[in-house]
Amino acid sequence: MFKIICQDKETRARLGEITTAHGKILTPAFMPVGTIGSVKTLSSEELKEMDYQLILANAFHLYLKPGIEIIKKSGGLHRFMNWNGAILTDSGGYQVFSLKNTKVTEEGADFHSSLDGSSHFFSPETSIKIQEILGADIIMAFDECLGYPTEYKKAEEAMERTARWAIRCKKTHKKNEQLLFGIIQGSIYKELRKIAIEKLEKINFPGYGIGSLSVGEPEEMMLEVIDSLVPLMPENKPRYLMGLGKPEQILEMIERGIDLFDSSFPTQIARNGSCLTHQGKIIIRDSIFKDDLTPIDEDCDCPVCRNYTRAYLRHLFNVGELLALRLASYHNLFFLNHLMKEARKAIRENRFASFYSLTKELLTTKLL
Amino acid sequence: MFKIICQDKETRARLGEITTAHGKILTPAFMPVGTIGSVKTLSSEELKEMDYQLILANAFHLYLKPGIEIIKKSGGLHRFMNWNGAILTDSGGYQVFSLKNTKVTEEGADFHSSLDGSSHFFSPETSIKIQEILGADIIMAFDECLGYPTEYKKAEEAMERTARWAIRCKKTHKKNEQLLFGIIQGSIYKELRKIAIEKLEKINFPGYGIGSLSVGEPEEMMLEVIDSLVPLMPENKPRYLMGLGKPEQILEMIERGIDLFDSSFPTQIARNGSCLTHQGKIIIRDSIFKDDLTPIDEDCDCPVCRNYTRAYLRHLFNVGELLALRLASYHNLFFLNHLMKEARKAIRENRFASFYSLTKELLTTKLL
Repeated sequence: MFKIICQDKETRARLGEITTAHGKILTPAFMPVGTIGSVKTLSSEELKEMDYQLILANAFHLYLKPGIEIIKKSGGLHRFMNWNGAILTDSGGYQVFSLKNTKVTEEGADFHSSLDGSSHFFSPETSIKIQEILGADIIMAFDECLGYPTEYKKAEEAMERTARWAIRCKKTHKKNEQLLFGIIQGSIYKELRKIAIEKLEKINFPGYGIGSLSVGEPEEMMLEVIDSLVPLMPENKPRYLMGLGKPEQILEMIERGIDLFDSSFPTQIARNGSCLTHQGKIIIRDSIFKDDLTPIDEDCDCPVCRNYTRAYLRHLFNVGELLALRLASYHNLFFLNHLMKEARKAIRENRFASFYSLTKELLTTKLL
Repeated sequence: MFKIICQDKETRARLGEITTAHGKILTPAFMPVGTIGSVKTLSSEELKEMDYQLILANAFHLYLKPGIEIIKKSGGLHRFMNWNGAILTDSGGYQVFSLKNTKVTEEGADFHSSLDGSSHFFSPETSIKIQEILGADIIMAFDECLGYPTEYKKAEEAMERTARWAIRCKKTHKKNEQLLFGIIQGSIYKELRKIAIEKLEKINFPGYGIGSLSVGEPEEMMLEVIDSLVPLMPENKPRYLMGLGKPEQILEMIERGIDLFDSSFPTQIARNGSCLTHQGKIIIRDSIFKDDLTPIDEDCDCPVCRNYTRAYLRHLFNVGELLALRLASYHNLFFLNHLMKEARKAIRENRFASFYSLTKELLTTKLL
């Protein structure tokens, strides 16, 4: 289900292809975040138009609202949200362990809904069953997530429990057309990450997520963990760094051999009035753009850049029109998908290192 | 610029065509309201896709934000908002006279911006000049608007001042490719409305708006005014009832010989979670729709009804996703444009009366 099309000679970057029940996904790939069945402000038709092949949703949020019965009745999440491309669902581990008062035992995690305070229980088995009903193409094992900092002993316990839970996830999972990925825990401790991948490889998952990174630790530390972990991960399986991030970070991680990414960053900054460009991020709601008749990004070919000016976008933000949030979100997601295409092209042409250093410099320019 | 294609035999309804610098408009027509350069939640591309030929914007709001200099620099409102269809701008009369502390003299109206308290002055001349810069295809004379109730003496003064201002508007207006419509005032007093149209016809406008109706007076009263006024209005010019309204009201007014309508009703109720259907209005955010897998309206062919279920829409409203507002707004505007097309077809086939009575009954069904 995963084949490496081409390996960059100078870096760990690789061009790959994941085959799913809803089409093939070229990697490296970025997934727009549609947590609760909608990528914020955008329609499924627009994501298709932007040429996204894979989006992310979240089992925990969909379990709470609208509830899995409704999605089951709808014929699964694809039909519920009218998305014919591939979907990856996160298991809910991250969300459950982000809540206050979550109690973890070997069996699973007791938590209270932040919506109404109601009591719920997620175990590896419930998470997999929920994800089977949602019907995503790639699903994630239920893991114990930790923030930063976490002391060694606690990180070790969580990593070991996650590995034991991974066995239960694999055993429960029956839906052959779904790919179940394991999640590597171990916080910032390289030796724990090493043990984690060894344990998970024995279970033999078709792909691996890297969890509990980009959760507040210094970036240097994250890079060290990735640099020591990636060479230990199997070559022939996709590597998914969960919850990252900014365009320049994504390129940095592609260089280190990561294949999959997700982040609400591009849509979140869009709703705050920031747009990604080939010359750095711009705060489009700034009054300096009030009579700027150029597009958000001269080098972008998205419909927003073809049809609207910075002056119009700035006006929409200034008067609080919802169209502003849509147009900025569309542009940012189009921009990021285009960046992934450029990255894949650079790998194919064996020039990723030079592409990366040039692009990183441009992306991190402080225009404003 | 206006020709009557066909006159219904049993009612005053007529099928017409207005020729503008940005295309022909079949009437009766409904205009989506894009007050400040955006029809709320929707893009210009979507309005085009829905087959709208004419939209409304507002000189007063655009004058305050973003300011006419920016729109002038953009090459006019069409280019600013990327709308290639026709635009009608209202003169700002209604808005200026809706503000507290507006002071009216023969020269014009002094008012304070509700945005920042700054002082401004609108006269017939300034309103026309602003509308010339905005570059709409149809522009409106600057009028003194009154609410309900207004005593006779005051209504008479405002009507007469509006008629004197109409002469100044006509004199100021230089842009030949724009159609300048006069506005008939006179509150609920039929005799004042009669004098108003006589005065305006002497100035010879290419079309007429009917102002200060649907401002809180009983519906019966509005119908009486329209019934006495329409026969006094010239046959060969478009009649525009400003600020109305609900689908069933629009049909009622088409029957009485009105050609143009605008209202924020369909988009406003959409954002509150209500959708128009051929079987009455439904409150889509209601929990009774939580597992309803049918479209908003079985008889609607819009992309929202083709692609999404009531259950999905209800979920989006329930979790506060902005996509909910978009999809409901799209459907409601599509629905209303389709209703106008059905009305025009009925007139062409000389069966408007039966179409109207059947449709009105369906539209006003209380489903919820």
